[in-house]
Amino acid sequence: MDDKKQIEEALSSPEMWIEEKHHSYFSTKFKLKSTLFSQKSKYQKIDIVDTYGFGKILLNDGIVMLSERDERIYHEMISHVPMFVHPNPKKVLIIGGGDGGTAREVLRHPQVEICKMIEIDEVVVNACKKHITQTSCIFDNPKLDLKIEDGIKFVNETNEKFDIIIIDSTDPIGPAKGLFGKDFYQNIKRILNDTGIVISQAENPHFDIRVQIELLKILKDVFTKVHIYNFSNITYPGGLWSFTYVSNNLCPKKNFNFSLYKKHNLDFYYYNKEIHHSAFILPEFMYKYLNQYLTTIKT
Amino acid sequence: MDDKKQIEEALSSPEMWIEEKHHSYFSTKFKLKSTLFSQKSKYQKIDIVDTYGFGKILLNDGIVMLSERDERIYHEMISHVPMFVHPNPKKVLIIGGGDGGTAREVLRHPQVEICKMIEIDEVVVNACKKHITQTSCIFDNPKLDLKIEDGIKFVNETNEKFDIIIIDSTDPIGPAKGLFGKDFYQNIKRILNDTGIVISQAENPHFDIRVQIELLKILKDVFTKVHIYNFSNITYPGGLWSFTYVSNNLCPKKNFNFSLYKKHNLDFYYYNKEIHHSAFILPEFMYKYLNQYLTTIKT
Repeated sequence: MDDKKQIEEALSSPEMWIEEKHHSYFSTKFKLKSTLFSQKSKYQKIDIVDTYGFGKILLNDGIVMLSERDERIYHEMISHVPMFVHPNPKKVLIIGGGDGGTAREVLRHPQVEICKMIEIDEVVVNACKKHITQTSCIFDNPKLDLKIEDGIKFVNETNEKFDIIIIDSTDPIGPAKGLFGKDFYQNIKRILNDTGIVISQAENPHFDIRVQIELLKILKDVFTKVHIYNFSNITYPGGLWSFTYVSNNLCPKKNFNFSLYKKHNLDFYYYNKEIHHSAFILPEFMYKYLNQYLTTIKT
Repeated sequence: MDDKKQIEEALSSPEMWIEEKHHSYFSTKFKLKSTLFSQKSKYQKIDIVDTYGFGKILLNDGIVMLSERDERIYHEMISHVPMFVHPNPKKVLIIGGGDGGTAREVLRHPQVEICKMIEIDEVVVNACKKHITQTSCIFDNPKLDLKIEDGIKFVNETNEKFDIIIIDSTDPIGPAKGLFGKDFYQNIKRILNDTGIVISQAENPHFDIRVQIELLKILKDVFTKVHIYNFSNITYPGGLWSFTYVSNNLCPKKNFNFSLYKKHNLDFYYYNKEIHHSAFILPEFMYKYLNQYLTTIKT
């Protein structure tokens, strides 16, 4: 709540800013304290900077992946929505998610026996281990099985099966492009237990509705129940952001079970019982473009 | 949906940008086509610029008030939420709202007999009349009674009564400061019909939770039912934005009546029947700070 001190410090500090451009006509800027890490990996350029007001920020190819100030919103919404619908999620697979935030939230659920994480870029993992412990703290957890490997190759080759699969990818350019394709999702279906849920990062409805349509078309071809839900954080441009939710038999409303919440004394920053449901309610412009691909949620 | 052309044009155009700074450590930038209007009024500096991707943008003292791209979100959410709760809103008062967008949405409801609008700054009205017809088109409507006057003075002196009062103000600095005070809301209560609703622009929960607390404290002292609801647009910083809803007897859920929607063939960009309810569901961090001031919504 209290960022008076950050404002005062920012006001009296040199004008060093980092800027993320969107669609060539819109950008967001964050005032820098310092650059902590900057390296080109095999896949992308990775920067970690310290800022006023947002704490540390991770950028891949100049695009903000997370800030310490608001990362809980994204990570709670990508993980707790499926975790509170599945009746007994023992095996969870995360594709991407190199900062560790998604795994951290998944492993707050004690019924999880193994959380396998397939991250393509070791440089992201190591940079976060050193500089962003708020998310990378989870890498010490014995239930986390982290493999540095191409997620597309992994789902193509593995015969393991999972209860929940989370595609915590970057945007559909660069290393994550193949994560938005049909072959990938056919493999995802093959390695999903009969009772299972798949969540995917699904971009911004204001700017990327075409990407959302293409993704939903694929998901509708492969899975029985197809939904999309929204959340709102600070550092991603344009307010709303979306995740897709697909399953063959688990409805996000009918199968929602919040009884473990109190039992395990979980606390949240953004997610709660009501947000779980309201996240699936879409602004009218999204229904206009997406409704034909979506399964109606039974009340 | 289609902004490919805007992206291409922006890419090949000179680097002219307009920047709005927030809290000295965060800013948003919009790529300019041209400046259409720039004038210092008695109260504030007013600029209207044409941009790539967002159409025309109105700024007061360098703060974005609206863009043609997403103004419908704000204006639908400030007006239709109370309009679909009040059983028969005949007299509506708008304080501020000089661009005309709120009045435009209010007057889509045919049962309104008079929409009185009290705007302090004639320069805003005239600039929008000339340059932003998307919102100012409403100024020709015979049901609109526009007065150029200080809203605080007006509510202090008038004996007229209203069914719905909308405080469509700028931030609580400069000319709008007094619109966030207790004296103002005691007058608002005096000129509100026994069955009535008051909506106020209530800033951003991520950055301005202190302002929200102060406003809710005042509202709780003056009115019986106090609520806050959220929406998400693109051009305001930080995703979520809030409006307060207060009334002496109308519950936003129990008294919601959407039957006029089909009758009058209204279409919306963002608002719909489900968004009406889900907007009142808050992220957990907002409950933490605000819950003690809020009335529980009866189901």
